[in-house]
Amino acid sequence: MIFASDNWAGASEPVIAALAAAARKGGPAYGADDITKAVEKRFADLFEHEVAVFLVASGTFANSLSLSAFARPGGIVYAHRDAHIAVDEAGATEFSGGGLKIATLESDAGKISPVALAAALERFPGHGFHGGQPVALSVTQLTELGTAYTPAEVAALAKVAKGAGIAVHMDGARFANAIAGLGVSPAEMTWRAGVDVLSFGGTKNGCIAAEAVIFFDPKQAADAGYVRQRGGQGFSKNWFIAAQLAAYLDKDHWLELARHANAMAARLAEAIRRSKRLRLAFEPAGNEVFATMETGIDQKLRAAGARYYPWTPESLPVAERPGPGEILVRLLTSWQTTAAEIDRLGGLLD
Amino acid sequence: MIFASDNWAGASEPVIAALAAAARKGGPAYGADDITKAVEKRFADLFEHEVAVFLVASGTFANSLSLSAFARPGGIVYAHRDAHIAVDEAGATEFSGGGLKIATLESDAGKISPVALAAALERFPGHGFHGGQPVALSVTQLTELGTAYTPAEVAALAKVAKGAGIAVHMDGARFANAIAGLGVSPAEMTWRAGVDVLSFGGTKNGCIAAEAVIFFDPKQAADAGYVRQRGGQGFSKNWFIAAQLAAYLDKDHWLELARHANAMAARLAEAIRRSKRLRLAFEPAGNEVFATMETGIDQKLRAAGARYYPWTPESLPVAERPGPGEILVRLLTSWQTTAAEIDRLGGLLD
Amino acid sequence: MIFASDNWAGASEPVIAALAAAARKGGPAYGADDITKAVEKRFADLFEHEVAVFLVASGTFANSLSLSAFARPGGIVYAHRDAHIAVDEAGATEFSGGGLKIATLESDAGKISPVALAAALERFPGHGFHGGQPVALSVTQLTELGTAYTPAEVAALAKVAKGAGIAVHMDGARFANAIAGLGVSPAEMTWRAGVDVLSFGGTKNGCIAAEAVIFFDPKQAADAGYVRQRGGQGFSKNWFIAAQLAAYLDKDHWLELARHANAMAARLAEAIRRSKRLRLAFEPAGNEVFATMETGIDQKLRAAGARYYPWTPESLPVAERPGPGEILVRLLTSWQTTAAEIDRLGGLLD
Amino acid sequence: MIFASDNWAGASEPVIAALAAAARKGGPAYGADDITKAVEKRFADLFEHEVAVFLVASGTFANSLSLSAFARPGGIVYAHRDAHIAVDEAGATEFSGGGLKIATLESDAGKISPVALAAALERFPGHGFHGGQPVALSVTQLTELGTAYTPAEVAALAKVAKGAGIAVHMDGARFANAIAGLGVSPAEMTWRAGVDVLSFGGTKNGCIAAEAVIFFDPKQAADAGYVRQRGGQGFSKNWFIAAQLAAYLDKDHWLELARHANAMAARLAEAIRRSKRLRLAFEPAGNEVFATMETGIDQKLRAAGARYYPWTPESLPVAERPGPGEILVRLLTSWQTTAAEIDRLGGLLD
Repeated sequence: MIFASDNWAGASEPVIAALAAAARKGGPAYGADDITKAVEKRFADLFEHEVAVFLVASGTFANSLSLSAFARPGGIVYAHRDAHIAVDEAGATEFSGGGLKIATLESDAGKISPVALAAALERFPGHGFHGGQPVALSVTQLTELGTAYTPAEVAALAKVAKGAGIAVHMDGARFANAIAGLGVSPAEMTWRAGVDVLSFGGTKNGCIAAEAVIFFDPKQAADAGYVRQRGGQGFSKNWFIAAQLAAYLDKDHWLELARHANAMAARLAEAIRRSKRLRLAFEPAGNEVFATMETGIDQKLRAAGARYYPWTPESLPVAERPGPGEILVRLLTSWQTTAAEIDRLGGLLD
Repeated sequence: MIFASDNWAGASEPVIAALAAAARKGGPAYGADDITKAVEKRFADLFEHEVAVFLVASGTFANSLSLSAFARPGGIVYAHRDAHIAVDEAGATEFSGGGLKIATLESDAGKISPVALAAALERFPGHGFHGGQPVALSVTQLTELGTAYTPAEVAALAKVAKGAGIAVHMDGARFANAIAGLGVSPAEMTWRAGVDVLSFGGTKNGCIAAEAVIFFDPKQAADAGYVRQRGGQGFSKNWFIAAQLAAYLDKDHWLELARHANAMAARLAEAIRRSKRLRLAFEPAGNEVFATMETGIDQKLRAAGARYYPWTPESLPVAERPGPGEILVRLLTSWQTTAAEIDRLGGLLD
Repeated sequence: MIFASDNWAGASEPVIAALAAAARKGGPAYGADDITKAVEKRFADLFEHEVAVFLVASGTFANSLSLSAFARPGGIVYAHRDAHIAVDEAGATEFSGGGLKIATLESDAGKISPVALAAALERFPGHGFHGGQPVALSVTQLTELGTAYTPAEVAALAKVAKGAGIAVHMDGARFANAIAGLGVSPAEMTWRAGVDVLSFGGTKNGCIAAEAVIFFDPKQAADAGYVRQRGGQGFSKNWFIAAQLAAYLDKDHWLELARHANAMAARLAEAIRRSKRLRLAFEPAGNEVFATMETGIDQKLRAAGARYYPWTPESLPVAERPGPGEILVRLLTSWQTTAAEIDRLGGLLD
Repeated sequence: MIFASDNWAGASEPVIAALAAAARKGGPAYGADDITKAVEKRFADLFEHEVAVFLVASGTFANSLSLSAFARPGGIVYAHRDAHIAVDEAGATEFSGGGLKIATLESDAGKISPVALAAALERFPGHGFHGGQPVALSVTQLTELGTAYTPAEVAALAKVAKGAGIAVHMDGARFANAIAGLGVSPAEMTWRAGVDVLSFGGTKNGCIAAEAVIFFDPKQAADAGYVRQRGGQGFSKNWFIAAQLAAYLDKDHWLELARHANAMAARLAEAIRRSKRLRLAFEPAGNEVFATMETGIDQKLRAAGARYYPWTPESLPVAERPGPGEILVRLLTSWQTTAAEIDRLGGLLD
């Protein structure tokens, strides 16, 4: 009963097979191999747009690489208060952007609102050079609280961002789960809604260590090759990422894996709804379930071997925060989660 | 009627005279001159403690130099939401510390509370290396809202900070006004209360461009000379700062200047209290006066030539924020402000 | 006939099998898995010393992580003029160390001499803070020119370095080839000779993307976990590196692979010695062969499908540089190179 | 007999008077004052070109600000081996440019040759992203060895630089001495010869702490205001620099001061030529005199109270380096040097 994170899962068989085959063969270094070239082309097809693709091995570096393209002196990036770039990357954005500042925003059910963004954009600048200069908005999809932005919601945010002259980055560590959940196309979710650069995640959904940074305007990627090399992710055996992603994208394998994870989350949410001692914090849009539970249930679940993490209550509106004797927890499902695991957990909820 | 900032004032005659005398003479470069040596010794006497002194020409760089001494990878600095390092230095802390993150805190009347600090210290770390590592607390004295921490209040914060293994920096851009207002000694206000490093300001109180970074443990200043040189503030004619500060510190000139500025602020506060169309946001402890005023008064004052800045209402508790037809403003007095100016302004408040 | 780089090779079967097995299983994230723990212990045994181990996915990042442990403001790292950190990492050292400077040194057959190091150490500092502060020496093993430092040679350099108070880093991208070639123990080659931190390479010798940074004094690694996380190489599925290295180190597999590569280089060197139209630039100590060849031979080899790179003639003493009609080339063998390939190349050399 | 540096001199009377007058008056902060505006306009007139001017307080920061405008990830700046940015600024360029690398070049009599530049430009790039990307050439005027580039020499270098797509920076710490010595116009020496940005020095020639960064294409200065603010040189009392430079530029005061310093250097050079125990290393073009002297003379001069610094012999061609019993020294004159001082020194040279 592992609900700690989707990154505790292993890799899917097609991904393992593709990697092993590539590893037996080797090939030209630094991305000059055929598998890399084919994957880059595959991404252009998937997104129905010209793209500049940079394969990397982690989501943190995908975000750094994406945002560094827009870094300027005194630069400010706007993000959700719980965003991975804000609280989980040990200052990667600040560092890799040469001193970027992250201005964090509150949210409604995990989604930054255009009004909140507009207010934040007004705060720092406006008195000469003192306040620095806004450079980018970073949205997370699935959001930090398991909900999903619709294309229209992204477009509304992008409109505010573009109005202020700043770029839009999407941290798509769980992009597959969002696409599978919303049933929209990758194009609708990204460049058609105003996204400039996407961290496209594979690691949490069946790959081992495979992410791609997708720039929808190749001109904005002018320095990205240098940033990747300098960051030590211009891998000599670049095919090790490309082979994973080739299998991942082939025949909608990525969506198939995500649909399974999402279905397991829906089954879990249903179990929670049936219980009187827990309540869902949000309607899950993908594979992340947030719930408030009595501490007695928490102890019972942990005693039975369930693994999951508590979450900061400040992420909820004041009225919805856990009361005395309650905690907020995050439960993640993955492509490896089984219905039996969910049902075993569900049986412990009363 | 200039109340825009104390940095609109000129320099006092003793400061000008000292600088001119030094400039006629010249001397060995890079701080090897006699004036610099004498000022460094003077600071040790003033603070009744061994100190490592680094003269610099701006408050922003004083803060950068102070905090860079404690910078570590993934480092987090805790500061007030309106702190100069957070909103007025174009990312100087983030940059000069090699990617530091500033975690901002709300306050009660401008003062960070030990409880708020303790809560913030718990938020980021605690899950491996992801959240980064806290490295320093930065408090501002006078505070961003014109109040002052007592030595006991600083000590209470320092206790929390030291308990978490982090350093305490004091941004003393208006240190003179705080000392003059509280009537405590520089030693009580700093190292006796747990402060590790102080940005000691001169520029806003009668100097031209003169600040000093005071480390109370010289071992913590091991790299500060390199940071200053690299930052382009290891001045060849270092005596230009030393001469200003020598005059500033001589015969309590600095406190005399600050007492005047504070007295003018008190006179201004009294005028505000007398009016029905304004209210003080806080009791001023030094030379900064925050008031909520009707927009009609604001227009009248500006028409009469008064200069001052509006301030962000979010710095006040919700219940005290300006209502419809009101704005929050900041009015600063300086060593050059005259009673006549205050009285002229006062005459316009009804 | 691929002699372009040892990083064009694939991965060995034991490495592929170990990775596939781990990937089927998954496990706790961020290095909390059993494979990682076992590998860390294995390194302590291999080096006969307490170690702090940080697994990473590239040699560039291994070097950055190693050197950032010694970074200080104004810091200077001393390295060979052709060192990977100096010419092949797009400024990784400068960047990740928060602005480090690399001072490059000439060499004798690829080896930095203690005299050259001592002279360089005297150049920059010595006038206050202006010149910055030396922080580390980085030596490459195998060297950039395919030779190898003996433990005594490393010790002589380390003595100069330690006398100047700076750390010693070894870039061991081809550490296996050096150990296999010299027949000394990993301990003799590193901490016993004064090395503080080692970039231990696996990628070029049978792994896919697997390197380890080995600190011999864990106290020097205090910040390394934050640097790795911030750099996006604190991988969630850290076991993907650990599994490769576990197989690599098991039953001297790493040395077996390196011995083969070295034997192929020796066979190639012998073929070159037999030809009148080429000459060896150095006696190869491992799997790197540098030779000066007539351009006619170069054209013939390339026409036959051989792949290798030209090398900068300035790396040779003036008297030994290619004359008119000649070029200097680098030919690398790997664990995958076959005797047949060598013999086919050898047959083309006359 | 102070020949240690021109920065040991004080400030000229007109400069002191202008600063004192401005300091008595004060004014709007952060460069919104009238003196700053007038000086900015004065620079446009002086250079006969539209300019973006950024006043700063040190030459090191002027260089950092200039070069940061062209910084890109993996960026490489080309400069003379003895350049101030390479050996005297504690890594300011590396740091402020977010990890720039300085590639140093040998010279002929202090002047970088177009051939050497072209060769260096070819070395690092050319294999994907590994080698980083050239971004700027920095030339020093007067050169590090007291000679001066003619406009034609600068133009020849700029042609190579522009051919490689990189910017041209001139470190004009002694720009006044060069202009006074060559008798060319500021326009001829800079933008007409291909210079993009100039560090215009005042501090070494009669000011206290006053330099200006002059961009000849204001678009290239888009971020410079943020870099200056972040670096703590966006001074509140910006008029303190502007007032110095206003007096400095008024009625050719700057050239008058430089002509005097140059004349004193010529008088010193003549004294050296007359002696048999010294020889000039180069014909001085401004106020810097390099000479090889017998150590006996060196001792005699120092015993008589003369102050000057030894210089690294490697800056000379091998054939011209000091022999046994000789040292290379640098002697600087300033606007304050007197003919009597020169003659007293001259009397000691036999």
